[in-house]
Amino acid sequence: MFQSFEATTTPQTGGPRLALLRAELDRDGLDGFIVPRADAHQGEYVADCDKRLSWLTGFTGSAGFCVALKDQAAVFIDGRYKLQVRDQVDLEYFTPVDWPKTKLGDWLAENAASGAVIGFDPWLHTKGEIDAAEARLKGTGIILKPCDNLVDRIWADRPAPPKGLMLPYGVELAGKSSADKRADIAAELEKSGHKSLVLTQPDAIAWALNTRGTDLGQTPVALAFATLDDTGHATLFIDPAKVDDALRQHLGNDVTLQTPDEFGAAIDGLSGPVLVDASTAPVWLDARLKAAETEVAYGADPILLAKAVKNPVELAGTTEAHLRDGVAVSEFLAWVASLGPAPTITEIDVVKKLEAFRAATGLLKHISFDTICGTGPNGAIMHYRVTDQTNRPIEPDNLLLVDSGAQYLDGTTDITRTMAIGTPPTEAVRAFTLVLKGMISVSKARFPKGLAGRDIDPLARTALWQAGLDFDHGTGHGVGVYLSVHEGPQRISRVSDVPLQEGMILSNEPGYYKPGAFGIRIENLIVVEPAPRIAGGDDRPMMQFRTLTYAPIDRALIDIDLLTGPERDWLNAYHKDVSQKLRNRCTPETQIWLDQACAPI
Amino acid sequence: MFQSFEATTTPQTGGPRLALLRAELDRDGLDGFIVPRADAHQGEYVADCDKRLSWLTGFTGSAGFCVALKDQAAVFIDGRYKLQVRDQVDLEYFTPVDWPKTKLGDWLAENAASGAVIGFDPWLHTKGEIDAAEARLKGTGIILKPCDNLVDRIWADRPAPPKGLMLPYGVELAGKSSADKRADIAAELEKSGHKSLVLTQPDAIAWALNTRGTDLGQTPVALAFATLDDTGHATLFIDPAKVDDALRQHLGNDVTLQTPDEFGAAIDGLSGPVLVDASTAPVWLDARLKAAETEVAYGADPILLAKAVKNPVELAGTTEAHLRDGVAVSEFLAWVASLGPAPTITEIDVVKKLEAFRAATGLLKHISFDTICGTGPNGAIMHYRVTDQTNRPIEPDNLLLVDSGAQYLDGTTDITRTMAIGTPPTEAVRAFTLVLKGMISVSKARFPKGLAGRDIDPLARTALWQAGLDFDHGTGHGVGVYLSVHEGPQRISRVSDVPLQEGMILSNEPGYYKPGAFGIRIENLIVVEPAPRIAGGDDRPMMQFRTLTYAPIDRALIDIDLLTGPERDWLNAYHKDVSQKLRNRCTPETQIWLDQACAPI
Repeated sequence: MFQSFEATTTPQTGGPRLALLRAELDRDGLDGFIVPRADAHQGEYVADCDKRLSWLTGFTGSAGFCVALKDQAAVFIDGRYKLQVRDQVDLEYFTPVDWPKTKLGDWLAENAASGAVIGFDPWLHTKGEIDAAEARLKGTGIILKPCDNLVDRIWADRPAPPKGLMLPYGVELAGKSSADKRADIAAELEKSGHKSLVLTQPDAIAWALNTRGTDLGQTPVALAFATLDDTGHATLFIDPAKVDDALRQHLGNDVTLQTPDEFGAAIDGLSGPVLVDASTAPVWLDARLKAAETEVAYGADPILLAKAVKNPVELAGTTEAHLRDGVAVSEFLAWVASLGPAPTITEIDVVKKLEAFRAATGLLKHISFDTICGTGPNGAIMHYRVTDQTNRPIEPDNLLLVDSGAQYLDGTTDITRTMAIGTPPTEAVRAFTLVLKGMISVSKARFPKGLAGRDIDPLARTALWQAGLDFDHGTGHGVGVYLSVHEGPQRISRVSDVPLQEGMILSNEPGYYKPGAFGIRIENLIVVEPAPRIAGGDDRPMMQFRTLTYAPIDRALIDIDLLTGPERDWLNAYHKDVSQKLRNRCTPETQIWLDQACAPI
Repeated sequence: MFQSFEATTTPQTGGPRLALLRAELDRDGLDGFIVPRADAHQGEYVADCDKRLSWLTGFTGSAGFCVALKDQAAVFIDGRYKLQVRDQVDLEYFTPVDWPKTKLGDWLAENAASGAVIGFDPWLHTKGEIDAAEARLKGTGIILKPCDNLVDRIWADRPAPPKGLMLPYGVELAGKSSADKRADIAAELEKSGHKSLVLTQPDAIAWALNTRGTDLGQTPVALAFATLDDTGHATLFIDPAKVDDALRQHLGNDVTLQTPDEFGAAIDGLSGPVLVDASTAPVWLDARLKAAETEVAYGADPILLAKAVKNPVELAGTTEAHLRDGVAVSEFLAWVASLGPAPTITEIDVVKKLEAFRAATGLLKHISFDTICGTGPNGAIMHYRVTDQTNRPIEPDNLLLVDSGAQYLDGTTDITRTMAIGTPPTEAVRAFTLVLKGMISVSKARFPKGLAGRDIDPLARTALWQAGLDFDHGTGHGVGVYLSVHEGPQRISRVSDVPLQEGMILSNEPGYYKPGAFGIRIENLIVVEPAPRIAGGDDRPMMQFRTLTYAPIDRALIDIDLLTGPERDWLNAYHKDVSQKLRNRCTPETQIWLDQACAPI
């Protein structure tokens, strides 16, 4: 079982640990210290040894930070965690702050004294973060000062960093050799006049070197740093414990192996201009390069875009991974249906069963994120993760929302289905149908080449808007191939102006959430491809989406009268595809259920 | 007759005039001079005395500029004018340059010698323009130098600047006194820490002082400059010939009158920071303020947004103006219909007749822009303006596109209707229906408050996209009230992130253009208003559009099978409104036509 349901809230340790931290402040002559949730790689998941924020405060959310001053401490959390933080931290010691509404710099300006020196670990913050805070602190006399990590000093039983092997990822899965990828990136560096590139994101390293790993579970990477020069030569800074002969052979002579301890000296020796991605690189890197008087150029890491555009081998792999996953999900959906209108199970039972169906494929490497499984009002909590404390019995005559995904060697999946349990309220059926209309509108969209996610985002919403409804998240995020389930730069979002290119994988997941009542989300992954010319169309190049995800969409939740003819046609064709692609791979019981679940409406 | 059909092309004068200009280059020791189409106010229309570009080169387009070097001269024109420029300039002397693809700085870097000094009139260029060119010329040794206008020296019979009276625009039309408007802007200046604002756009001055004028015809303004301080006091720099007692009384004591000659000294005396809109203010202003060592703050002129948000009196006025205009347009459409399937008239006849119907209202102050009237292939030329040379007989079994507008005291209109002449091709009917679907989608859109034009723009296109089609212009522009027919900052466009606010007027004008064959555009003006809460909707504030324009949409061009039920409902309800609002104000013949044109489909 990959998912855990422990509610690791230890509010009672917050006070004593804060006292220990304050002793360190005194020792170093500091007036405060910042404890972020991030590690040095700024990814979505962090290893146990990097969970400093939850160790200190008790707060386990996936974003946020704590600022500990001598007389007060604040935990900065976003809207998702407004309620959760109050259960998880001792409010006598920690004050929740509404972030990003209140920014670090603003809060410090108001709460720290002029002349205060606030320490931070330069490995755990980006240049962008520190620059923004310093800009706001201008003229206040408050200073941010890089220093040792004070939490690491006092965290007696801090876990060791993960030491999973870095694993070769063969060209038969990656579709392109690491040498070719590095040559392409090197050519880009040369063209843009950069001498070298520093890689601090493990999934960028994994893509460039055709490797994977097990350090983070949900994202199959090994934590490491790397540099790449404009000849295509890479140096990988990695704990030798993670390296075996198979990896050494896979990497070959054009990838030099060094230990993480050697990273600093290697940075000192880089020739500039060095391309650094300011949105993810630790500010430590900026300081180190400047101390060495090396020219730094801030810009987007070219690997991000290259990684986002999948090659045919990756697309074939992930297509198969999605069919495999679709079978597991269909078995799961059939099982839920078999429980009847008033199942006597809980959210945790559902999560366990779903993981079991995926594990039964024999190919499940990990879940790609903790399953979001919400019944009734829990479905309306957008980032809900069930724990032993929040676990609810499945509510009859309501909805059950399950958002989950898998990591297989050949691909990463992410699918949301919302199911009718018993007879849900008419209001929920209407809202589900409106969400479905948006999801169909994106699925069947054609659009001129060069447009970005922000040009597509409204398509997912207009049906909801007409009914006075909307949802407060983007329509879709980028997805990797046996890599991160949330990757950039592509997104379907009001704020994304990255042109959608052939081979980019995105989620298509409109929703609707009625607080205290129910939640709806329908999610398929889609891939961008050129659209064939239509008779009567003009000659401009057009793009379209191909659907990757196959699993029935609950027909019991559809108000057919609200669908247009073409929408109904899309749904029936989709269900026909689902049946054709999955039926023969399902158990006999599920086949019977599938026939009915995929019948035309 | 306001519109002229003269093709004012005098290519033969280009050579001799260029020779005269070059003599002035020698006299002043310059290596080149830039002649823009713009005047000092950077508006859409310029007075005859400012038509330096067409006087020198023969090119009469609405945007572009000429760079005259000693050995060559380039005319920079955008895609719209690619063909026209070749008819209008003597290609022996002038080389057309594809702009903005090739930018001023790039062209100079390639074509001028190192050390070359290129003169420009600092009144006719914005700081943004000059800054961009200078950035590209860095390191080339080529210098841009502000100087006298060399064209004005050699243009012997240059017309005098227009001297129309500046006219009071009563509060019964403006809806808010100038004193109140100035107080509001002053409060904004105070809040943002600016001491004064310099106004160089005549329509901003017209709005702030509640005045209008006749200097530019299509835009009812008087050319002038003004300053406004943070107490609400304004100084107006205007030719005394344009001022009479009525205006003096209207402006009152809080508006000081000075002559344009006094503008420079007044700028010297301003206290900073002075707010200047860099996108429209002449670079002369920047230099003058800097010479006086006054702090300059570049930012958006707050008047633009205030002017864009219409008050209830303005909305009532423009609503009535649109009904009046709708009657004139309906009379016109009925007249076209009465000519039968093969009318023996030309585009110019059509334009004249339409203007006559508007003039017959007795209230027409001017047309708001030159009518675009294109039959057959001319309809596919997006900015087509018919002249004696291009005039075509109306083509049977094709489409006739007419885009026109009027200036009435109480409002500005802009409407496009595309008509069937005889039996147009099936392809044109299908494309018209797809354009109509987009136009309806915007008309009936509801959307969360705070969204911008770029979030609405895709709604106008999805039906076309699905058929492999699109159009290469924005969906809509802002429109004033008895002011400019094209105003900012609001737009419905892929690039507009200005939130749509209650009271903003926009055009809704999707189209489709098949080069060499036909053109389609359907345009109504719409105004943003809060949407009433819908039963079952959540509590987020939503906005919608109210349609201002009423005139039948040609039912002969609609393929009913392509419309959804709600689209058909919208069209029938719109036509019912058209009939109810206009019928009693039409002639008996037009009433009969209207009954049939507005019958449900």
